[in-house]
Amino acid sequence: MPKIAILGGSGYTAAELIRILLRHPQAQIVAVVSRQESKDGTPLVAELHPSLTRRIDLRCEPFNVDQLAARGVECVFSCMPHGVSMETLPAVLERGMRAVDLSADYRLRDPNIYARWYGESHADLVHLTQAVYGLPELYGDELPTSQLVANPGCYPQTAILGLAPLVSGQIVALRDIIVDSKSGVSGAGRTPKLATHFPECNESVSAYSVGTHRHTPEIEQALSDVAGQKVEVIFTPHLIPMDRGIFTTIYAQPLRQLTESQLLDLYREYYRNAAFVRVVKHLPGSKDCAGTNYCDMTVRVVGGRVLVLACLDNLIRGASGVAVQNFNRMYGFDESAGLA
Amino acid sequence: MPKIAILGGSGYTAAELIRILLRHPQAQIVAVVSRQESKDGTPLVAELHPSLTRRIDLRCEPFNVDQLAARGVECVFSCMPHGVSMETLPAVLERGMRAVDLSADYRLRDPNIYARWYGESHADLVHLTQAVYGLPELYGDELPTSQLVANPGCYPQTAILGLAPLVSGQIVALRDIIVDSKSGVSGAGRTPKLATHFPECNESVSAYSVGTHRHTPEIEQALSDVAGQKVEVIFTPHLIPMDRGIFTTIYAQPLRQLTESQLLDLYREYYRNAAFVRVVKHLPGSKDCAGTNYCDMTVRVVGGRVLVLACLDNLIRGASGVAVQNFNRMYGFDESAGLA
Amino acid sequence: MPKIAILGGSGYTAAELIRILLRHPQAQIVAVVSRQESKDGTPLVAELHPSLTRRIDLRCEPFNVDQLAARGVECVFSCMPHGVSMETLPAVLERGMRAVDLSADYRLRDPNIYARWYGESHADLVHLTQAVYGLPELYGDELPTSQLVANPGCYPQTAILGLAPLVSGQIVALRDIIVDSKSGVSGAGRTPKLATHFPECNESVSAYSVGTHRHTPEIEQALSDVAGQKVEVIFTPHLIPMDRGIFTTIYAQPLRQLTESQLLDLYREYYRNAAFVRVVKHLPGSKDCAGTNYCDMTVRVVGGRVLVLACLDNLIRGASGVAVQNFNRMYGFDESAGLA
Amino acid sequence: MPKIAILGGSGYTAAELIRILLRHPQAQIVAVVSRQESKDGTPLVAELHPSLTRRIDLRCEPFNVDQLAARGVECVFSCMPHGVSMETLPAVLERGMRAVDLSADYRLRDPNIYARWYGESHADLVHLTQAVYGLPELYGDELPTSQLVANPGCYPQTAILGLAPLVSGQIVALRDIIVDSKSGVSGAGRTPKLATHFPECNESVSAYSVGTHRHTPEIEQALSDVAGQKVEVIFTPHLIPMDRGIFTTIYAQPLRQLTESQLLDLYREYYRNAAFVRVVKHLPGSKDCAGTNYCDMTVRVVGGRVLVLACLDNLIRGASGVAVQNFNRMYGFDESAGLA
Repeated sequence: MPKIAILGGSGYTAAELIRILLRHPQAQIVAVVSRQESKDGTPLVAELHPSLTRRIDLRCEPFNVDQLAARGVECVFSCMPHGVSMETLPAVLERGMRAVDLSADYRLRDPNIYARWYGESHADLVHLTQAVYGLPELYGDELPTSQLVANPGCYPQTAILGLAPLVSGQIVALRDIIVDSKSGVSGAGRTPKLATHFPECNESVSAYSVGTHRHTPEIEQALSDVAGQKVEVIFTPHLIPMDRGIFTTIYAQPLRQLTESQLLDLYREYYRNAAFVRVVKHLPGSKDCAGTNYCDMTVRVVGGRVLVLACLDNLIRGASGVAVQNFNRMYGFDESAGLA
Repeated sequence: MPKIAILGGSGYTAAELIRILLRHPQAQIVAVVSRQESKDGTPLVAELHPSLTRRIDLRCEPFNVDQLAARGVECVFSCMPHGVSMETLPAVLERGMRAVDLSADYRLRDPNIYARWYGESHADLVHLTQAVYGLPELYGDELPTSQLVANPGCYPQTAILGLAPLVSGQIVALRDIIVDSKSGVSGAGRTPKLATHFPECNESVSAYSVGTHRHTPEIEQALSDVAGQKVEVIFTPHLIPMDRGIFTTIYAQPLRQLTESQLLDLYREYYRNAAFVRVVKHLPGSKDCAGTNYCDMTVRVVGGRVLVLACLDNLIRGASGVAVQNFNRMYGFDESAGLA
Repeated sequence: MPKIAILGGSGYTAAELIRILLRHPQAQIVAVVSRQESKDGTPLVAELHPSLTRRIDLRCEPFNVDQLAARGVECVFSCMPHGVSMETLPAVLERGMRAVDLSADYRLRDPNIYARWYGESHADLVHLTQAVYGLPELYGDELPTSQLVANPGCYPQTAILGLAPLVSGQIVALRDIIVDSKSGVSGAGRTPKLATHFPECNESVSAYSVGTHRHTPEIEQALSDVAGQKVEVIFTPHLIPMDRGIFTTIYAQPLRQLTESQLLDLYREYYRNAAFVRVVKHLPGSKDCAGTNYCDMTVRVVGGRVLVLACLDNLIRGASGVAVQNFNRMYGFDESAGLA
Repeated sequence: MPKIAILGGSGYTAAELIRILLRHPQAQIVAVVSRQESKDGTPLVAELHPSLTRRIDLRCEPFNVDQLAARGVECVFSCMPHGVSMETLPAVLERGMRAVDLSADYRLRDPNIYARWYGESHADLVHLTQAVYGLPELYGDELPTSQLVANPGCYPQTAILGLAPLVSGQIVALRDIIVDSKSGVSGAGRTPKLATHFPECNESVSAYSVGTHRHTPEIEQALSDVAGQKVEVIFTPHLIPMDRGIFTTIYAQPLRQLTESQLLDLYREYYRNAAFVRVVKHLPGSKDCAGTNYCDMTVRVVGGRVLVLACLDNLIRGASGVAVQNFNRMYGFDESAGLA
């Protein structure tokens, strides 16, 4: 049973990760590290997250890689923000521990693309080349031997999983793919800002980061891997007044004329071994996936376009759930352990 | 001061219309007709709509066109559902009253298209040919002399107003236009259904009527008028957990390369005389328009596509507010009367 | 591993129960009965509850007690509405199966009180006398030998658990206890009504059933048991625009002057063996308990009154979670099985 | 037509006040002062509040009392936070301008009580003695001659208006009055904090400031005025996941036995001249008052207690609407001007 440390324990993905791992039969959380909260003493994890009262007795602690090693930590989950992860994880990896990084730091293979979209140079080129992109349905074979897994973004999973069957089979044009996503507010993290202040975003819908959202290159990288050639998408995220859930509507230009029925068959076949992708015939709602690690999707043909509608829970399938799914594959556990 | 009757008084658009007209300096509500609620006596309007307590003393009454005429009603607003409106309004129009129909019955000029999308033959071909489509920014000149105005749909206004400057100038391709809309739940009306039951639609986003929504031909008809040739759109509506507001994200294929700045200038010029269209530079949110008759919009260029982002309040600009805007133009009142 | 049948499978408590039991190591769902939905064929359970797609393969079936017996069903959970449960369960109990009834039918020991509050005579006096009120923290010792457990109401649990330490020790007056409760909308069930139509109840708070809510006698019965004499409460429920969660604010008149610290100690001592009651020092929020079987509570002294603040998830602790907690005690399983 | 300046222009009450005054036939906004936002230049008011785009052309400006006087400002509305108002308004008042202060600074007549509840000494004792508490239904006669009006708090209005008919007639005991209030999040202001971060407070209900909320002495002062002797209340505020609206449930101990019908008559008589208090027979919901200056209330008798249920829109009746109602009385305008 691998001993686990969670780095960056104050946010929503950390709380969700703790909840999942507490249910996991083959994982033991031995440390929760939190930079911000542990300065003035060492608060209980349950003080940061009252919902975890009586469920975890650990206190937050400052980051000390030697202590983690001394306590036998085998695997680290980083819930730290991007930029901080790549400053912190090298020491962890050099001690021989394995890591699942929930930040964006190791997702983009090309450090120039990282620098362009994230506005700073990559600080850990050594490990960047070794990182595996942790979308288990596409990169699952590399996980058992990986030391460092770059956990995928929430939006990208809907786009990549939703488009993979189409770009894989050259069924659609690889350009002019439109990805229109709608997300609940927890995706913005736990730091209060005006845009996520309740009376600002409640009872409102808006687009943000139009044409500039950092998940764009991540989507394109993975889909280009699948297609074997460059894929380009137009990605527009929207903020929706709800806690959790992402719903993505994809518009692609078909190169071959397939009926909805043929497309559904294609999707079912593509995901026949995927425990957490549900290809459905009905129009799914993001709530169908709430609290689960499933990504639900369906396909339609409208006005000469193929439409894919895909949704998931951004904190579970979009972050902490898929992190545990990756962990399960890394250690050879049942893929659903902790996630049922 | 025209005397007004409201037909179909039990729904949200009727309540909103009453609120607006009570503030209007040149309108007097003299009758509220409600089929459903007036069977067992004549309830006060305020019993149907507690928010109107002490604001309107009228009782609901059954439909009796002679009584309306006898009381000097000059203008009727129909908030009845489609199908019922075209059965009811002929008698009203034959008495010489003018009418603003908030249902869909007189929006589509071609009765065959009506039959195809609404599943029944049109019942009032006589008046259908005389109806003016009540989008004041585009058809405003026809309003002063019209007897029957077909008030536009909520979704279509965002799509039509958002695309008119582009299709008017042949700046974008007239096919492969994608209209991805997000709407609050009041757009579905006041009749309880499972899909709009709070615990079903709260904390969820979903698409509905994909490829089959009845607002599609309405969008295409108006944009074809503007373009002078056939326009086709792919329209996908989504249900969002909020009361009111529509946000529409439009993706069009440019035929000429214009910068965002040039596009914004084009939009500002196109709507320079439009009191209720606000072309803004920032990314708008649907809440900016809540409770108002404004349609806010902006333009972006992303990945070779022109994106238009447009929003409005579906009950005001999307229904009852634009109805009063139409009424103001019909009677030569200040366009903003009652709407400031 | 007891084989289980769920009666009344179309509502929210049934869906939640299925989710919990699927995770339970010692329970096997073998039948889901649904009156309403099985008339025109036998839909998959996942068709009623899309969130359960691929998680349960059963089809809904009509109620046939012989078939249930033939398939070896040992325990039945009834999620049917009150009135229907007491018509249906006798046949189940007579076959020797055990039952947990989530309806209100077997909660009130006095059939006259049932008749007064529910407006109909009780139809199963035989089993009414045998039923155990399934609040495990208070009636847990009777559960192992019970055949029929009356699962407690959602509101009553906050009031009873919140007041038990006070009325048990004669610390507060047994009259003039005020119970002001706030509930999410899922507590109203899955049948669409105007009051729970999204645009009606969203962005609104209101009280309902003031002075007449049927949970009043249930609260008084259990607290009278605890006190050994008659307890009376004023109970006012409110509807809050959220999916799930109940928050109850209780105002009681102290007979002895205890400090907040002494009261907290008293509560901790009273619930020292209660796995699912968390006595906390901070002010809890209903979200702390969302998705869990916990009831969180704290105590304050204000202006000469003792205030108790208690909250829980109405679908889990308030219904399906406590049903499984009862089941666990009935069968001698770990109290937390399926609920961690 | 009085020229008006608004101080503290960046918050929700300022935006609402601007909206109301733009509709007011006898008021002209000539300046909007904002400390925070005008440091780096002078942003348009519409940049702070995008909803006001094209509705107001003023720029924010720093506070300069001489400039305000030079431009002929007659009346100032202060939307500044408490503490800041009493530092700023003396200069305004000394110039002879009149002021409506939406902060709490001039509400409590006793500076010792102010110091105890607000944690700082009062900085303007001179004007404190002259201030009129701006609850028009109770202190309306003093408004025409007042220079400084202390606009009442949102919660207190429900409690004071809800209880005034009872304590006025000595119908209830003046102690042991319980005031349980539920408020939307906009009441907490526009500054982002963790407690009002969307994913924290959405889908949750919680109590806060239990026994310590600063509106308690304000409620007690006004009710003591009405009763002619000391009134004490227990006030418990709760945070509800909605934008706006307050719903207050009051429990009082009757000294005389009156029926619900008699109590309703008493209330109707007490408020027979109150344009903005609606005594209703049905159970009101906070949404009935949304967007209006009304306070709706009803009365019930339950278990030997009198219950009052009162609600209002916290930004309008609770703040900016009642401020304009006060302004109308100060200047002898129609009480409803701008508020219909």
